[in-house]
Formats: sequence, structure tokens, C-alpha cells
Amino acid sequence: MNMDQSKTSISTVWNGDRSGQGTIESGSLNAPIAIPQAFGGTGAGTEPKELLLASASACFTMTLVGLLEARKLPAARLAMNSEVSISPEGIMKMIHRPELVLPDGTPDESMQLAERTFEAADRQCSVGNLLKKAGVEIGIEGRVSAGAGAL
Amino acid sequence: MNMDQSKTSISTVWNGDRSGQGTIESGSLNAPIAIPQAFGGTGAGTEPKELLLASASACFTMTLVGLLEARKLPAARLAMNSEVSISPEGIMKMIHRPELVLPDGTPDESMQLAERTFEAADRQCSVGNLLKKAGVEIGIEGRVSAGAGAL
Repeated sequence: MNMDQSKTSISTVWNGDRSGQGTIESGSLNAPIAIPQAFGGTGAGTEPKELLLASASACFTMTLVGLLEARKLPAARLAMNSEVSISPEGIMKMIHRPELVLPDGTPDESMQLAERTFEAADRQCSVGNLLKKAGVEIGIEGRVSAGAGAL
Repeated sequence: MNMDQSKTSISTVWNGDRSGQGTIESGSLNAPIAIPQAFGGTGAGTEPKELLLASASACFTMTLVGLLEARKLPAARLAMNSEVSISPEGIMKMIHRPELVLPDGTPDESMQLAERTFEAADRQCSVGNLLKKAGVEIGIEGRVSAGAGAL
């Protein structure tokens, strides 16, 4: 997904010192934030690295959904686990693991097209591309299967 | 705040096509996500750009909180509005507007020290520095006052 040019804003409030807690809020986001325990905080809330991963994950997912629609590949189910870690050398690495279930009876060529869609989504996702420019490594470990799609 | 080296993971689920909706979830984050209306979605959820801003905002806030504690400047209140926009040339610009209230009777030199803390927090925030490396512009428009700190 490319970036929307409209203005987006959020409000952040913090109470207390390092062991305190805050909230981050916008029209559609409302989450407690807390400093991770590794930095002397309570850890009882989301934090910058997790939100950065959430941004990259949402971007990849939405780009993928747009491409699947354009390629007439209706997902019966789409779920993804994403993780981020930082190497001792300070390199941030993210991995997205999308699991795409296409309807029972989807022809083989469509299954293969769906697999290639993961790479296309990675190439087109604007947040991912921004992070890569800053040296973040992003890996995609996708899986396509056919099934009923029940959760 | 520097980055914690532990692994962080989140789960993302999506239902439907471009006009569908999803959720993004971790231990402490649980938010609906939706494709913005500008891209043919419902707009009824948070999206990548907002989450990216939330990450930068949380990082700046937590870094600031740590510095205020180290400098013995207890905040009576800390609130911040952050916004992000993208220029027609594609340059992403974020502005953080922290409003810091120090206790009544805080000496002038402490007030000035607190003002300088905004710039120090900007220089030390890891997510902000990562985004700057990718060409994002970040501006700080902070305000320090003294008062009772009631919301």
C-alpha cells in the first residue's frame, strides 16, 4: 500500500516516571503504553518496537489483500504472525509469516500465483520499503493452502 | 529509548477483500485495522501510517520520560499531540508537540533544562533516528509550563 497523503494525528499522555504508564489514542487506536522491563519500566503496555512491527505488518497485509483482489484470488482466510528482533550488531530484522487459505478446488496455477503475491506485496508495501531504506531486514515466509477457511 | 533486543511478535488476521477488516494483536496491543477510504477501504480501523506515527510518538515520549527522571525534573503532567503528513513529493514529515507541566514553583533554570530535554529526547529516540535515516523529517514543537498539573 502506498501512503495516504492526508494528515494523521494521535494523542499520547504519560503519567509518572520511567515506571509510570501512558496511553496512545487516535480515532481508531487506543492502547496502553509502557516502558519495557528491560529499560526499568513495567512492561504493561505496548512499546515503540511492537508498534513499528504492527505498522509493517498492517502495511504488508493490506498490500497483499489489494493484490489478491486485483488477481481475483479471494482468500478464504488470511492470518499472519510477524516478529521483530535486533541482532547484537544492532540490525533490526522483521519476519512476516502469512498463511493464506484459498477456497477448496482452487486450480494449481492460482495457487502458484498466490505464492508470488507474497513477494509482490513485500516489494510494494510502503512502510516496509521505508524501513528497508533505514537498514531493516524484512523476510517473508509465506504459506498457501486450499481449504474451507474455517478458523 | 534504545531498542530492546528481545523478540517481539504480533498476530494479524484479515477477513474479506479490500473493503474487509482485520485485527492486529499482541500481548498489549489489540486494534482493528482497515484500509483507508482513500484506497477503497472502510477506514474503520487503524492503518500503517498511524501505527508508524504511534511508534515514533511512544518512543519520543518514553525517551523524554527517562531523561526527565535522570535530570530530576518530575512532570506534573505530560501530554503530546503528534501528526504525520506526506508532501506531494513523497517526503514524510512528523511533528511531535509535547506539553510538559512542571510543578508550581519550579526554578527558572529547571524550566530551561526541561526545554532542552525535548531536543535531547529527539536525538536519542531510536525509532525517530531509524525513520530519519529513511528520509523522514521529524520536528519538535515543545512547550514547558509550571502549574498544578490537573488534567
